[in-house]
Amino acid sequence: MTDTSAGTTKLIRTQGVTAPAGFKATGIAAGIKASGALDLALVFNEGPDYAAAGVFTRNKVKAAPVLWTQQVLTTGRLRAVILNSGGANACTGPGGFQDAHATAEAVAAALSDWGSETGAIEVAVCSTGLIGDRLPMDKVLAGVTEIVHEMAGGLTGGEEAARAIMTTDTVPKQVALHHAGNWTVGGMAKGAGMLAPSLATMLCVLTTDAVADAAALDRALRRASALTFDRLDVDGSCSTNDTVLLLASGASEITPSQDELDEAVLRVCDDLCAQLQADAEGVTKRVVVTVTGAATESDALTAARVVARDSLVKTALFGSDPNWGRVLAAVGMAPVQLEPDRISVSFNGSPVCVDGVGAPGAREVDLSGADIDVTIDLGVGSERASIRTTDLSHAYVEENSAYSS
Amino acid sequence: MTDTSAGTTKLIRTQGVTAPAGFKATGIAAGIKASGALDLALVFNEGPDYAAAGVFTRNKVKAAPVLWTQQVLTTGRLRAVILNSGGANACTGPGGFQDAHATAEAVAAALSDWGSETGAIEVAVCSTGLIGDRLPMDKVLAGVTEIVHEMAGGLTGGEEAARAIMTTDTVPKQVALHHAGNWTVGGMAKGAGMLAPSLATMLCVLTTDAVADAAALDRALRRASALTFDRLDVDGSCSTNDTVLLLASGASEITPSQDELDEAVLRVCDDLCAQLQADAEGVTKRVVVTVTGAATESDALTAARVVARDSLVKTALFGSDPNWGRVLAAVGMAPVQLEPDRISVSFNGSPVCVDGVGAPGAREVDLSGADIDVTIDLGVGSERASIRTTDLSHAYVEENSAYSS
Repeated sequence: MTDTSAGTTKLIRTQGVTAPAGFKATGIAAGIKASGALDLALVFNEGPDYAAAGVFTRNKVKAAPVLWTQQVLTTGRLRAVILNSGGANACTGPGGFQDAHATAEAVAAALSDWGSETGAIEVAVCSTGLIGDRLPMDKVLAGVTEIVHEMAGGLTGGEEAARAIMTTDTVPKQVALHHAGNWTVGGMAKGAGMLAPSLATMLCVLTTDAVADAAALDRALRRASALTFDRLDVDGSCSTNDTVLLLASGASEITPSQDELDEAVLRVCDDLCAQLQADAEGVTKRVVVTVTGAATESDALTAARVVARDSLVKTALFGSDPNWGRVLAAVGMAPVQLEPDRISVSFNGSPVCVDGVGAPGAREVDLSGADIDVTIDLGVGSERASIRTTDLSHAYVEENSAYSS
Repeated sequence: MTDTSAGTTKLIRTQGVTAPAGFKATGIAAGIKASGALDLALVFNEGPDYAAAGVFTRNKVKAAPVLWTQQVLTTGRLRAVILNSGGANACTGPGGFQDAHATAEAVAAALSDWGSETGAIEVAVCSTGLIGDRLPMDKVLAGVTEIVHEMAGGLTGGEEAARAIMTTDTVPKQVALHHAGNWTVGGMAKGAGMLAPSLATMLCVLTTDAVADAAALDRALRRASALTFDRLDVDGSCSTNDTVLLLASGASEITPSQDELDEAVLRVCDDLCAQLQADAEGVTKRVVVTVTGAATESDALTAARVVARDSLVKTALFGSDPNWGRVLAAVGMAPVQLEPDRISVSFNGSPVCVDGVGAPGAREVDLSGADIDVTIDLGVGSERASIRTTDLSHAYVEENSAYSS
């Protein structure tokens, strides 16, 4: 952890969950994926503290590992997180829940064998992949023994863990924030959407060596998620498996203020969010939809989300087409306070619609670049909010029409 | 109208708005479309009655012709409908509203010149095409004079009218229902979505020679729209211009019961709806999503719509992929009463998920045909509803990324 220089706070993308003191992690190929790619990851908290918090999918159809992890997190304490790609273990009934439980038991037993006395109740489980199939438990359980053995033997690496949770991701996503006060927050994530995103699902594990209790972690995590993962919306689809966990080891022996912790966790989540957006399924444009002049922040967020989810807006942006009428048509359906004659829209800072009517040159705005900023001023108040999204491309259709075959 | 044989009710797709007695219609190329295709349509009610009703887009951003037509329809009376493609006249400000008004005035003046004393207040205006540009009023007004002249000279044809309102439609949509009781309902429609559909917009004019007052027409039209156009959802996007009008001439001198009228209008709307679905932008699959076992009909409709709008479900269907997990993930986000362990799903009658868990053979169900039936049983009640939709294909992305260019 020699990257921290006193007095400056730095974000470093070549580091992840093992950047904070007190954490080990690794990833292996356990044979869950037919391709032989990495598919099992372990994040282990060596302590001395084991405080933890989590946020989960709002989908009523929750995968077995989500149900398991919600249950163990009621203690506010975690020693380890085991994550697999290659199968979501969702819609798998009571048998699927038993599989998640058995996986946690196996992790606890293996860690205990290596001298870290652990109960299954201290092990979170996360899964990602196709919905509806049981996991190959022979491979999962053999993999658990192997991964704990490797980690105990010193073969640890946050990047391997970040790689082992990839599904349709093309690059691993990780980042570490080294706080000027000599404590660190690290994180890894996978997926293609918001906190409640697509079937590729969003999983994220954050670690910190700060001293913080479960309540402090919970506050920091909920606030950061609401402002980052909750505002990333690739396709409006919400996974059965979304999970974001934050574990604190206390190994730095430094107790940041709640505000410092909030800010650091927010920055790590925000950076991971930008990485998820940039690697979303089929993305050719990184789009930020900002609504300003709203009566409430909630209105701004709702309106931005409606525009960000509109297929006609997203296909126009794929075509670099400044078709602002589609933005008006989309925002007009948002259940928020608005007056059509007060709405103004700009693309990349160029006004294309003023007071509900087209602006001169609107059809000639150049949207050929990879980044597109859509700003909609409702003109009825002073609140604002942004949603990160992507275009709707041929690649999105291609990738998602062949996902399970 | 010789297709009506006493004692049988028949649907005939080669006829449309001129099938009922008392109606004339035609379509011309007024030069609004650069392509030179038909772009101006007129439907004229010769009476003796002029009762009318309408339903309109729920979008808060309403096109000028919608605002105009809502206003004139407060009288419950219409003599004519003028419709143009080649421009939506939406987001065009007060000038755009004046254009719609001037168009109605011109139609009224031209009809009056030809001996049919008409006021602008009796003329509905509908527009469809790109949002945000003013219409070329020189061409529209010259076209109005020409189309009334042609119609008065006997050059009438419902099919020309149906063709003149096409935008991305590939075929005109019309149908006539000849009721056994010697009265008729005719209709034409254009568009690619539900009553509140896509930017291609949905316009529909229905005519009948039945004797019916505005209240009876209104009831029949609202009921039919709620069960047909409101349940067609191609892409979840809602147009600024959607309009459905029903005009009654009374020329048959027959007064059907309200139930008979309701049923006939429903059948015509249902048939037009099927035609719209079959010709929707980029469609390769005609999909019906049915939710059964819901606590309320409203729950069933909401859940079916959420599934019908889900990009991951729609891309899977494009790929003929029986990826039922995406249906579960989608329905799990619907704000309705459900229990994950009671949900069952079938594709084309084959069970793929029973009580929230995959059914044997689910991954092998053949969805290669053009028609796909998705049925979701929530298992918590006895209500049901269906939404017609389409897949999300490369052609949809292609067509909509180049719409305005």
